Amino acid sequence: MSDIASLKTRIQREFGTPAVVIDLDVVEHNIKKAQALCDAAGVGNRPHIKTHKSPLIAKMQMDHGASGITCQKVGEAEVMAEGGIDKILISYNIFGEEKTGRLGAVLKKADITVAADNPTVVAGLPHAAEVAGRDLGVVVEIDTGRKRAGVENPSEAIALAKDIASRKGLKFRGFMLYPPEDKMVETQKFLDEVLTAIRADGLDAEIISTGGTPNLLNLGKIKGVTEHRAGTCVFNDRMMMAAGFASLDECALRVYATVVSRAGPERGILDSGSKTLTTDTGWGLEGYGYLIEHPEAKIARFAEEHGFLDLAACNDRPKVGDVVRVVPNHVCVVVNMVDRLVAVRGTEIVGEIPVAARGRLT
Amino acid sequence: MSDIASLKTRIQREFGTPAVVIDLDVVEHNIKKAQALCDAAGVGNRPHIKTHKSPLIAKMQMDHGASGITCQKVGEAEVMAEGGIDKILISYNIFGEEKTGRLGAVLKKADITVAADNPTVVAGLPHAAEVAGRDLGVVVEIDTGRKRAGVENPSEAIALAKDIASRKGLKFRGFMLYPPEDKMVETQKFLDEVLTAIRADGLDAEIISTGGTPNLLNLGKIKGVTEHRAGTCVFNDRMMMAAGFASLDECALRVYATVVSRAGPERGILDSGSKTLTTDTGWGLEGYGYLIEHPEAKIARFAEEHGFLDLAACNDRPKVGDVVRVVPNHVCVVVNMVDRLVAVRGTEIVGEIPVAARGRLT
Repeated sequence: MSDIASLKTRIQREFGTPAVVIDLDVVEHNIKKAQALCDAAGVGNRPHIKTHKSPLIAKMQMDHGASGITCQKVGEAEVMAEGGIDKILISYNIFGEEKTGRLGAVLKKADITVAADNPTVVAGLPHAAEVAGRDLGVVVEIDTGRKRAGVENPSEAIALAKDIASRKGLKFRGFMLYPPEDKMVETQKFLDEVLTAIRADGLDAEIISTGGTPNLLNLGKIKGVTEHRAGTCVFNDRMMMAAGFASLDECALRVYATVVSRAGPERGILDSGSKTLTTDTGWGLEGYGYLIEHPEAKIARFAEEHGFLDLAACNDRPKVGDVVRVVPNHVCVVVNMVDRLVAVRGTEIVGEIPVAARGRLT
Repeated sequence: MSDIASLKTRIQREFGTPAVVIDLDVVEHNIKKAQALCDAAGVGNRPHIKTHKSPLIAKMQMDHGASGITCQKVGEAEVMAEGGIDKILISYNIFGEEKTGRLGAVLKKADITVAADNPTVVAGLPHAAEVAGRDLGVVVEIDTGRKRAGVENPSEAIALAKDIASRKGLKFRGFMLYPPEDKMVETQKFLDEVLTAIRADGLDAEIISTGGTPNLLNLGKIKGVTEHRAGTCVFNDRMMMAAGFASLDECALRVYATVVSRAGPERGILDSGSKTLTTDTGWGLEGYGYLIEHPEAKIARFAEEHGFLDLAACNDRPKVGDVVRVVPNHVCVVVNMVDRLVAVRGTEIVGEIPVAARGRLT
């Protein structure tokens, strides 16, 4: 039996399928690649932990040179601070006393900066500083065309920066954005206008933070950026291959699934459905994952625990009992379905990694 | 403040949002309704626990007259058996020694029947009986048009029934199917052919199990059915409203979300994205959920932790900080995202219910 056949058998026997498996050798390669891209552009690397939700992997990123991490939820920051990470950007509007109270408790332990895009959220943030007994850093989230979170025009960004700077307990630290890959020029114009205005008011931006794995290839195109937040590149997936960022060898995560039925000659069923592989799609992809063993197969649709294979284009079709490896469309949502990842290096199983911040929705 | 406004504030303050909230009064109504539909048709009620994944709610279903429960994974059956439920159908092809070994361990504690749709899976099942020291019941899964799991023609079904009956440790118990809502006549023909043939061979089917919440309205149309498996009806959702099964008042689950941004006059952002509300859709639905407070609003798209609202059609638009209640498209996948549900009765908070079998992928 080949090494990989033996690994597949061991995973089926020892963990059962579906199993979400990461190769730590590939993870390390991916961490180094992102760090090198940031280093080459002279910007700090602040990886987003939404992809792995693991303090252990966050520490690997810090050990390779990251200047801090990014979280999306206070609950994620709690887990990361508990795990010893002390430089955290929460890239999200944190609203309500329950959350600002917990934010204050984390701020006691770690250097925390949060993002905000509106005055209502800003008005609630001093509560966290009161709880912590120290200042809370705040960046203004701006939107330069993605129509996501963030203020849409420079005048609002300027007003919000001044609002933050005027409040006791808050320290204005700069701007956060997630620029569309095709809007570098428009983004530069927006940023320049805002920076000129706030400097005229005696403020300055120590942080200008951009985001997104595909934008790692655009570093340097926007002047003034101080750090970059990328999440998916730690594992990569079919979307990052479609985006031209990653090769198949750079996809560190594979879902090991068993073929449990061959309902018809051109149909097969995996024991992994929407509750494992998820229905996310994008970047023009067809189907819900790439099968290493059967690249012509298509994961055509899902039930919750069934992945329905269209095998019409396959000459070599899997049989019931076969283990196949699936590169999912979107790793960040797949990791979020499981409580632990199986860790391998090449064809050796090296352990399990808890997805410690999974389920921290608030 | 109205009772409901007060409840929303309490949930935001005490649990934080997003919070997945079920109303136990509505759950009880829904359990009684499904039981009454089964009783009226003279078929057993074997609810599928994939929707709630909670032994506590499974016990409520048993207490209201269910004859057993349905699970999709051995891991779910382990949690349910541990929780005291002792009549379990696992409606899934169970393959591999790791799984058949665990299946045997559960079979020691509970009356277990499994489904199978191919000889490879059947050949592995006696291992479970050996481990348990008692017979394992097996039903043949048949597919009468949905193109899901199950054998597609009567001759295969008959052959598989005989295969099961011939094996030491296995007891052939009948057939399981999930008939398309519009194929009652074809399903009857398939079933009749199979039953005639196996009876000629001295076998009989003590179980003929149909499935699906919308098919609760079709009970009685297929003669010979002994039990029905419905999952979603315990909570209901926007898809079950679109399917004509449930009213809004019968939707027991709501995701309480906070509006955290109003990025533009016609845009808003909820603190619930694809990692809470999920991207499932179907039954011709547009958007990803129904907002009780703003029925004209559309959850147009998601980031992982953002729900992007299109408010163009709304006269009354929410402001930052407002809590809104969302009826999701598909409850089964939403419950699967969280470790616990907040339980209310009307406007009173009564506790939390662990989603005990969540994450039991294998």
